[in-house]
Amino acid sequence: MNTYSEQLNKLDHQLNALGFCESLIFWDAATLAPENSVDGRASTLVSLSELYYNLLINENTKELLKALEENKNDLDEVGLAKYKFYKEMYDKIACVPVDEYSAFKGLQSKASKAWEEAKEADDFAIFEPYLQKVINFQRKYVTYRNLGGHPYNTLLEDFERGLTVDVADKFFEGLREVIVPLVKEIQTKGKVIDSPFAGVTFPSKGQKEFSDQILDKLGFNKDSGIIAESVHPFTMNITRDDVRITTAYHEDYALSSIYSTIHECGHGLYEQNISKDLGFSKIATGTTMGIHESQSRIYENNIGRSEAFWTTYFDLLKNIFPEQLKDASAETCYLASNDVKASLIRIEADELTYSLHIMVRYEIEKGIFEGKYEAKDLPQVWNDLYTEYLGVTPPSDATGVLQDVHWSEGLFGYFPSYALGSAYACQFEAAMNKVFDFNQAILSDDLSQINEWLKENIHKYGSTKTPEEIILAATGEDFDPAYFTNYLKDKYSKIYDL
Amino acid sequence: MNTYSEQLNKLDHQLNALGFCESLIFWDAATLAPENSVDGRASTLVSLSELYYNLLINENTKELLKALEENKNDLDEVGLAKYKFYKEMYDKIACVPVDEYSAFKGLQSKASKAWEEAKEADDFAIFEPYLQKVINFQRKYVTYRNLGGHPYNTLLEDFERGLTVDVADKFFEGLREVIVPLVKEIQTKGKVIDSPFAGVTFPSKGQKEFSDQILDKLGFNKDSGIIAESVHPFTMNITRDDVRITTAYHEDYALSSIYSTIHECGHGLYEQNISKDLGFSKIATGTTMGIHESQSRIYENNIGRSEAFWTTYFDLLKNIFPEQLKDASAETCYLASNDVKASLIRIEADELTYSLHIMVRYEIEKGIFEGKYEAKDLPQVWNDLYTEYLGVTPPSDATGVLQDVHWSEGLFGYFPSYALGSAYACQFEAAMNKVFDFNQAILSDDLSQINEWLKENIHKYGSTKTPEEIILAATGEDFDPAYFTNYLKDKYSKIYDL
Repeated sequence: MNTYSEQLNKLDHQLNALGFCESLIFWDAATLAPENSVDGRASTLVSLSELYYNLLINENTKELLKALEENKNDLDEVGLAKYKFYKEMYDKIACVPVDEYSAFKGLQSKASKAWEEAKEADDFAIFEPYLQKVINFQRKYVTYRNLGGHPYNTLLEDFERGLTVDVADKFFEGLREVIVPLVKEIQTKGKVIDSPFAGVTFPSKGQKEFSDQILDKLGFNKDSGIIAESVHPFTMNITRDDVRITTAYHEDYALSSIYSTIHECGHGLYEQNISKDLGFSKIATGTTMGIHESQSRIYENNIGRSEAFWTTYFDLLKNIFPEQLKDASAETCYLASNDVKASLIRIEADELTYSLHIMVRYEIEKGIFEGKYEAKDLPQVWNDLYTEYLGVTPPSDATGVLQDVHWSEGLFGYFPSYALGSAYACQFEAAMNKVFDFNQAILSDDLSQINEWLKENIHKYGSTKTPEEIILAATGEDFDPAYFTNYLKDKYSKIYDL
Repeated sequence: MNTYSEQLNKLDHQLNALGFCESLIFWDAATLAPENSVDGRASTLVSLSELYYNLLINENTKELLKALEENKNDLDEVGLAKYKFYKEMYDKIACVPVDEYSAFKGLQSKASKAWEEAKEADDFAIFEPYLQKVINFQRKYVTYRNLGGHPYNTLLEDFERGLTVDVADKFFEGLREVIVPLVKEIQTKGKVIDSPFAGVTFPSKGQKEFSDQILDKLGFNKDSGIIAESVHPFTMNITRDDVRITTAYHEDYALSSIYSTIHECGHGLYEQNISKDLGFSKIATGTTMGIHESQSRIYENNIGRSEAFWTTYFDLLKNIFPEQLKDASAETCYLASNDVKASLIRIEADELTYSLHIMVRYEIEKGIFEGKYEAKDLPQVWNDLYTEYLGVTPPSDATGVLQDVHWSEGLFGYFPSYALGSAYACQFEAAMNKVFDFNQAILSDDLSQINEWLKENIHKYGSTKTPEEIILAATGEDFDPAYFTNYLKDKYSKIYDL
């Protein structure tokens, strides 16, 4: 039996090395690489994907996985998790022919570049043919892989193991029922919030300083990670000991970098806290996008947008910006960071309306895979749904259908994990409150109690558990979106005196 | 026939992709990666080297190379060069068993780390066991590969195709005969040079500004490259359109960053000017280290340490540092950048004594592969040779045998290419002078004439020609070290009024 485990470990190391390279290339492209590097990078990514495919998909691996299946009972916990992980990955990739698999990598590079140009020029026509190709590929993938039920299920599964259209429909319906009337009530009866950040310039240098200090407060290990700048903030885990996050500094909008940094820090802590026992392995990373987003969001929203956070850290910010914040207080900052506005841009949305932005994308993606929409239809569908769900109509595609990078990379099925993450986060907060006072932990200016709970119940497991297993073991219950909707009702009723 | 070429191109693309990753990883490690990233990186490099080996060394490649050999006459120029390149690489790598090949990658990482620690602590004992292992591996490699003649020949060949101990002995003997008496004459009869840089602080910010401006002047394309900082300056070519150089700013020693930048820029221009027709290929890089160093040195020394350079660019530097350079002139800067001092550190050596530093290393490496020296002997041998060749004795191993990174990475045979490069550079300068006035080109503040000549005669060919072929075609003669020795005699006689 040992020899099968060893074979799998060997394969895992090599695939993990290729993954390491791909991650580093993406990081580098977004932060540093020179203008003309794009073609060489695209060609390299295509070759790496061929290598990856050929290494994984062959008779040897097939035989190995069969042998492991037959001897499953002899595997230890990590070995079993690794087997399951690769069995799933094998089935997912083997159904796609190798030339289509690597051609898709080339298409991703080109489509991303076209998307950038289209967004810059506010011209959907530049992106449309590439988007249609990406859609065609993903539709074909759905027929290859075909998990059954709604065609979109196959894609949802890739980002949140176990998620189906039936489950997601119910989840979003439940959210809508709470969020839509709550937003309406705020818009009609809520008090007006004056932001101390509005119209004030916060030089990047100071924002960097705050980012740096708040990362220390949140427990981000700078010997095992770095922070840099990029247009769109993101986290890239190279290994658990090399976790990289980015933020973006907008001098006229300081809250943006603050919450980007905290959000990405949440992703980063998840990766840094994965058990060393998992080694350098493809399973030594967050289990799904939904659970990953729960970690970014618990830091960004449950911690970062709490009253306790501003009570504790307002002085830190004011020390850096005494002039800009001379009339501000912890209270006004707290309110400003929770100001509800039905707006056009997802990543600038407040915590309450955020899920409505996700629902727009969810409905569109579902429609694409039902065959209702083609690329050319999306600008109009997008605008119609924003008008219906948020009451705002994008004046341009740059602030509408072109705002997100995801579709250019073929990431259909990804968006729902953002909303799920917010909901998981609230259930985790509730579970912590059974053990210690979550709020008090933030007020104590020592987040180690929270970090430790998350590490022990979520982070350390990497990909060895499914979301269902993690949620049940950590909270004692199955996933229950009511934690999220109750949290929203409580929080916003208080803020807006409803 | 097409199908063989296509198969080779496919293999070349995949190996080139792995090379791309390795280069990016090294770049990243030296410029950015966090402290704790070292183990994950080492593990990744080992896996990549296994992948590289397995992809290249197998029956398929063997058959392919045989088929190409048999149908050589049908190949075009690039195809033939690629075949020769891979035939050589195959023979070089196939003789080493795969586990030893990849284990060596792991050893390199560990030995480099031990070397860094040893240098920092000025304690050779930390490095010694690792160095001995590296020596043992390379001795074994020599027996595996065995090109015949002196065992060191096999290693020299890896860095300068065609170089042997016989050739190198004669080359260095010729240099010694000129350099040693010249240095002695300067020390006894030469005038004393007062440096306007001595004891003056040049803030890094200004040095960066000058680096940036001089790169533009030298023709470095910043859309296809970047400059960053690292402890030891180096050049890393990711692709011809993504060439990265580093420099190091020492506020008490401004000439250091100036000449590091110009040196690395020379390497960088070589890579950026390689013909696009070679595509993304392992042959789309400089042909050997000797030719590569000729390009860094022609920029650093023949251009950068010329009187014409300072006449043209002194004002550029003075505009940035008006206070520091208020009493300086083009003339005093020129003299200061050519001040001859028998010193301890190779990378800080002047152009004349530089080759003596190389000879010390050459003699030691030759002795190691003759079995005369083991790792433990090297500090003493080093000090003895410095005393003999340069008349200075290192007071510590940190400024002696521990100063260079090369041996920790197993790069025995590399050092001679530095001296060869200086010599090639002088022969290239002489060849240019037959076509246009080299000096006048520098004085015109437009280096495109020089750049164009180097591009057309050297750069564009990448690895498709050997050093011999390049030198003969570019200069109309075989390599002749007299161009170098005459250049040194002329230059230093004038500077020191001998």
